[in-house]
Amino acid sequence: MTTKLFRNARIFTPLDPGAPLGGATQGRVQVYENGALLVQNGRVEKLGPAAGVLGEIVRAGAKIHQEIDCQGACLVPGFVDPHTHMCFARPREAEFDLRLAGTPYLEILAKGGGILSSVRDVRAASEADLLAATRRRVLTALGLGTTTVEIKSGYGLETASELRMLRVIARVGRELPVDVVPTFLGAHAVPEEFRGDPDGYVALIVNEMIPAVREQGIARFCDVFCEQGVFSIAQTRRILQAARSAGLQLKLHADEVHDLGGAGLAAELKAVSADHLLAASDENIARMAQAGVVASLLPATAYSLRKPYARARRMIQGGVPVALASDCNPGSSYTESMPFVFGLAVMQMDLSPLEALTAVTLNAAYALGVAGRVGSLDPGKQADFLLLDGESPAILAYHAGVSPVTAVYKRGELAAGREDP
Amino acid sequence: MTTKLFRNARIFTPLDPGAPLGGATQGRVQVYENGALLVQNGRVEKLGPAAGVLGEIVRAGAKIHQEIDCQGACLVPGFVDPHTHMCFARPREAEFDLRLAGTPYLEILAKGGGILSSVRDVRAASEADLLAATRRRVLTALGLGTTTVEIKSGYGLETASELRMLRVIARVGRELPVDVVPTFLGAHAVPEEFRGDPDGYVALIVNEMIPAVREQGIARFCDVFCEQGVFSIAQTRRILQAARSAGLQLKLHADEVHDLGGAGLAAELKAVSADHLLAASDENIARMAQAGVVASLLPATAYSLRKPYARARRMIQGGVPVALASDCNPGSSYTESMPFVFGLAVMQMDLSPLEALTAVTLNAAYALGVAGRVGSLDPGKQADFLLLDGESPAILAYHAGVSPVTAVYKRGELAAGREDP
Repeated sequence: MTTKLFRNARIFTPLDPGAPLGGATQGRVQVYENGALLVQNGRVEKLGPAAGVLGEIVRAGAKIHQEIDCQGACLVPGFVDPHTHMCFARPREAEFDLRLAGTPYLEILAKGGGILSSVRDVRAASEADLLAATRRRVLTALGLGTTTVEIKSGYGLETASELRMLRVIARVGRELPVDVVPTFLGAHAVPEEFRGDPDGYVALIVNEMIPAVREQGIARFCDVFCEQGVFSIAQTRRILQAARSAGLQLKLHADEVHDLGGAGLAAELKAVSADHLLAASDENIARMAQAGVVASLLPATAYSLRKPYARARRMIQGGVPVALASDCNPGSSYTESMPFVFGLAVMQMDLSPLEALTAVTLNAAYALGVAGRVGSLDPGKQADFLLLDGESPAILAYHAGVSPVTAVYKRGELAAGREDP
Repeated sequence: MTTKLFRNARIFTPLDPGAPLGGATQGRVQVYENGALLVQNGRVEKLGPAAGVLGEIVRAGAKIHQEIDCQGACLVPGFVDPHTHMCFARPREAEFDLRLAGTPYLEILAKGGGILSSVRDVRAASEADLLAATRRRVLTALGLGTTTVEIKSGYGLETASELRMLRVIARVGRELPVDVVPTFLGAHAVPEEFRGDPDGYVALIVNEMIPAVREQGIARFCDVFCEQGVFSIAQTRRILQAARSAGLQLKLHADEVHDLGGAGLAAELKAVSADHLLAASDENIARMAQAGVVASLLPATAYSLRKPYARARRMIQGGVPVALASDCNPGSSYTESMPFVFGLAVMQMDLSPLEALTAVTLNAAYALGVAGRVGSLDPGKQADFLLLDGESPAILAYHAGVSPVTAVYKRGELAAGREDP
């Protein structure tokens, strides 16, 4: 048994009441100004005011193998990034230039850009290259504080390529000190082979891909890009019902551009999360709150596409638990940085720093169904946490464009950064 | 004599025509897709297409001491950050929280916050502590690609403290591989001792501080915060005229909140730059263009204060050369990151990536009067340059919130990052 004591820390963590924190509780964060955290075998054993934790250690006669003086640094749970497409072969930098120059998306598609170019790249890439590219992005995210990350398939769009992506995603999770949650997103776009026959592709997903994904046993979620011109509400419902029957949990890309009613469908199906939500209606936000669906908001995507941000305050006021994610992908949000996402949420969506902290930790863990293990520093959970060069989580927004994460601990072990604050 | 060859690079650099690039020339950047850069004794000797540079080396029979394969990385001039207040004792994180919560600035001042709290901190700090804090920020900036930085005094507001700040600023420049340009900003605010008597403080600046700063011989520029409630146009003119007589070059914080006509005054006095300019009028922008004044724009400040951005496109269309700066300070823009500033300029102010590149290199060097030495890769200039993990400077905006700077070379030597791309 290994026991480590982290003392002289300003600890900020939501405590887990067994459900995500919505409405007025979104920013309910426990603060220990002179705090201590006791870690045993990679799990949180105790945390609280230093005097109390030290007293209990003495009473129990516990042996401390290592003591780390955090020198007053801020200590927060590791970030959980609940929506990414980090498994892709290469960035699309030239397309970004075209987009800035005002080239319409259809013209970019015609020039071989857009999501289908990432599909061609992934299909053509070797499994080793795809693994190396994905590992590199996850390591960048880890250095910026992400200790749990969801990664979607969805650049394969044919059964073998989708399964290959899920294998790569699972392997990254085995090889790196990051918990990886794999999501099957065969319904990311209609591939060129099915142009003009989206229902044919939906049938392939339902009849061939989902059974194969179930048999492979890697994916925990099924997601669908429900949007005008992509997958309709009816197609989305069909896919997600088949996925649920196959034992997968549900998510959806909902109401990003048009209010198709994706948020309402998420409530109807009791999906674990609905993501994007820039165009979600008040009525469907209310239905999400009633159904306990987490809203995963993606401000870096709004930033990169120069769109208005999702109405985070409206959702919080309506009682929806809000999570934040990077949406890391080569088209609309090429960033692995949760500090950047946190900053945008505070500066552009008007979340308080403590609301944003819950959004990138506990609520994000609920958005992935892994709150039993991560997302807060409740005793018994994994000792996944960060030291920040600042007085409080506000430093993540205040120190703009610069990551204040100096150390990343995964299951109590230093995984990135430096031990000495 | 040491000779280094950097080959297999995608080189992007403005070339220096002897004046800043304004109007249609703002984005005039030379590109060598398969480029090579020959460095001799820390200076650019040659650059161009690999074949040409290698041919000349062979013809001249030059001996190459070190050859670096850039592996296709993008190579750009080191960033010049022409407007910072990096010399301060400590951040003001608690005040940021108050500000987010909507506390009016006057109330923050009454609680001991605001600029005058930084003045108290700097007056109370030891020279060693102030040096350590400033060094740390400049090192952060260096790691993010800044190889030349302007740093202002202005948290002393009394003669001895202002001179002490300038000593610290000069020492950082001697000790670190960064060119530091010191600016005297005694007219940053009216100190508490002169509350109600701003003209008395102006007289102190003119009669005591400027002569002392001249005698000390460190500062190259004099700057004034010309703004309603701070220093009027008449006070600003008086200070800057005295500074010019004392041999200092001129800058001013102009029209940040109110259109006092600071941009027009900059043109009248032929200041080297006018900075902020959020409220500058069309008429005064035209006068800046005629007078050849560089506009130093500070998008991270607009971001942090949630204000509309300066009208960069209007200025470029009007022929004003645009530079970009971090404005790094503990109140309105706590960032050392020029990649972040570049990203905001492209995403929020609609500069093209090549226009933004000129703004953070050559035009910024002109804003500091150091374009003879830095700001572009013209032969004879210092070999200050960066390797970027991307195909072009667009990566600085495309890879949002993550710095793509992998190596920083100062006078041909690796100063931050890693040699192997």
